[in-house]
Amino acid sequence: MDLSALDTPVATVDLDAVERNIARLQGYCDEHALAFRPHIKTHKLPAIAHLQVRAGAVGITCQKLGEAEVMQAAGIRDILLTFPLLGPGKAERFAALAREGELSVAADSAVVARGLSRALAGSGSEAGFLVECDTGFARTGVQTPQEAAELAELVAALPGLRFDGLMTYPTLPGTGPALRAAIDEIRARGLEVGTVSAGGTPTLFTNHEVPEVTEVRAGTYLYGDRACIANGSVPLADCALRVRATVVSRPTADRGILDCGSKALTSDPVEPSGSGHGLIVEYPDAIVYALSEEHGHVDFGSCDERPEVGEVVTLVPNHACGCTNLYDDVAVHRGGRLVGFWPVAARGKVR
Amino acid sequence: MDLSALDTPVATVDLDAVERNIARLQGYCDEHALAFRPHIKTHKLPAIAHLQVRAGAVGITCQKLGEAEVMQAAGIRDILLTFPLLGPGKAERFAALAREGELSVAADSAVVARGLSRALAGSGSEAGFLVECDTGFARTGVQTPQEAAELAELVAALPGLRFDGLMTYPTLPGTGPALRAAIDEIRARGLEVGTVSAGGTPTLFTNHEVPEVTEVRAGTYLYGDRACIANGSVPLADCALRVRATVVSRPTADRGILDCGSKALTSDPVEPSGSGHGLIVEYPDAIVYALSEEHGHVDFGSCDERPEVGEVVTLVPNHACGCTNLYDDVAVHRGGRLVGFWPVAARGKVR
Repeated sequence: MDLSALDTPVATVDLDAVERNIARLQGYCDEHALAFRPHIKTHKLPAIAHLQVRAGAVGITCQKLGEAEVMQAAGIRDILLTFPLLGPGKAERFAALAREGELSVAADSAVVARGLSRALAGSGSEAGFLVECDTGFARTGVQTPQEAAELAELVAALPGLRFDGLMTYPTLPGTGPALRAAIDEIRARGLEVGTVSAGGTPTLFTNHEVPEVTEVRAGTYLYGDRACIANGSVPLADCALRVRATVVSRPTADRGILDCGSKALTSDPVEPSGSGHGLIVEYPDAIVYALSEEHGHVDFGSCDERPEVGEVVTLVPNHACGCTNLYDDVAVHRGGRLVGFWPVAARGKVR
Repeated sequence: MDLSALDTPVATVDLDAVERNIARLQGYCDEHALAFRPHIKTHKLPAIAHLQVRAGAVGITCQKLGEAEVMQAAGIRDILLTFPLLGPGKAERFAALAREGELSVAADSAVVARGLSRALAGSGSEAGFLVECDTGFARTGVQTPQEAAELAELVAALPGLRFDGLMTYPTLPGTGPALRAAIDEIRARGLEVGTVSAGGTPTLFTNHEVPEVTEVRAGTYLYGDRACIANGSVPLADCALRVRATVVSRPTADRGILDCGSKALTSDPVEPSGSGHGLIVEYPDAIVYALSEEHGHVDFGSCDERPEVGEVVTLVPNHACGCTNLYDDVAVHRGGRLVGFWPVAARGKVR
């Protein structure tokens, strides 16, 4: 079946482009002897996680326990959770996962470490722990080498936890020096720092310039999106996730309305802000200037050719991860021929 | 079970507040002899649609065919679809719904009317048709009284379709005069305009000032949100949808990170832009200044008291409809006691 036979809006995934993106990233990491641990938050599809592992990834990264549960249930063995897990409920679910596979977690506080240790020790399982360091992004992460070393020492002493090293996000100009200081401080206290995990798609290809980094994480590289085109990390031809939409109204000469709004594209902005809500491949000069929940508002004023009501167009969304999270399934294809509707198995796993 | 026993993030719905909002709106419409046709896009829950109909609503409004299918399957009889349906696939699904219940649709073009007519006539069913008029919002809708009348005449002549009247969104200062002109032009051509459907939560309580309006549609009033607080349509106490989240990191004295980001709150903005991504009820002076996909970035700098890691807080999201669309289920409660986890049955019905 051809994609043109599908009703709209529909999120489509070009499996050839996915494979190109996997090969490019794995190739980069292999060339620089970096471990690669892709983040499944972008696709949330077990089959693609397996493609990534088969290509050479050491394991995957998840943000949510529910995502890790879906991926372990789908046969993925080695999972890093890069989100602080709090409370006995989450700690017990994490310990249960750690009994069945290789689990590790990143966090920046003793509270999280102690809670996980209790659950792991209670269930007789073990998991790796990476101390999260803020190296310039100002989100989560310890703020100083001393804090990093104190948490590392605590983790090393807690039953059920294994101090594996450091984690940061994303790789920024200050990342190398900040990691170096934390590593030195931890080693000075007699602990080994085995893994140093960094990442993020926009600065992906700078990781080899930071000698402290041993492992790279990235998610969005897999699909690409309008932000990736803007920051140069993925070219338009390799943007695998697209939304097919229909022109449902042409009320004026310039205005067109599509059947994709914020519930089909996300309202995630792309820098510079004000630059619209998606790229229409067939009308690159059109501007998706506003989104209602189900309507995309388009200005075709700069286009020589303009669509009729009923015409189907293809959009590259601003942000692939937010977009795919809205869909229960995606239409996977090769060259426009449908491979199948794949359930976005790990979507909506908020907990 | 108390809500405090639930893991986070979790979307919670206060059923008492929902009932207050339903009573207030239905009371307003009854007082002014306006039909009320609530939009289920906000809640997407069959049980709440039934509450709305039992309270006196003439039927419901859906934006998507898939939403209408869920609601008809749940026993709702009278459904208006306020989105232009294009293509034989959608037309046939619409005709199938029209065989089983009372269906009507709004659109602004002959293409849509002709496609629906073919499918309805082919299946021996009938549906109402409202001509959508743009009365100032500049989205969908015919632009002139002449266009409205021409489409009305076409619809009246097409088999399977019944010309019922006009639809507009939202009710604005120019809505009355624009509707008046369209009604006069249509009546001059010998057609009756039975229904004039207008709506939108922000200007909800102005509909009685527009004598042309016979029916009111609104969705967000049901849950309320930060935008409703800002525009005065729903007070904080009646904001029924809230997201409970945990403080998962306190990296600096001012900064706190919550386990709710754009995938739990939506990145939908609230005017004035720059005013943040949600109201933290327990810390009203805190500012949710940024969202990552799973992290809410909070500045507690203006708060005298500040939370510890592990503390649970309650947020009123910027935009209820976008928020609830992210969750597979919501924790429905009365006074903090869990009624049950209700599946958001019509979420993700993009087509």
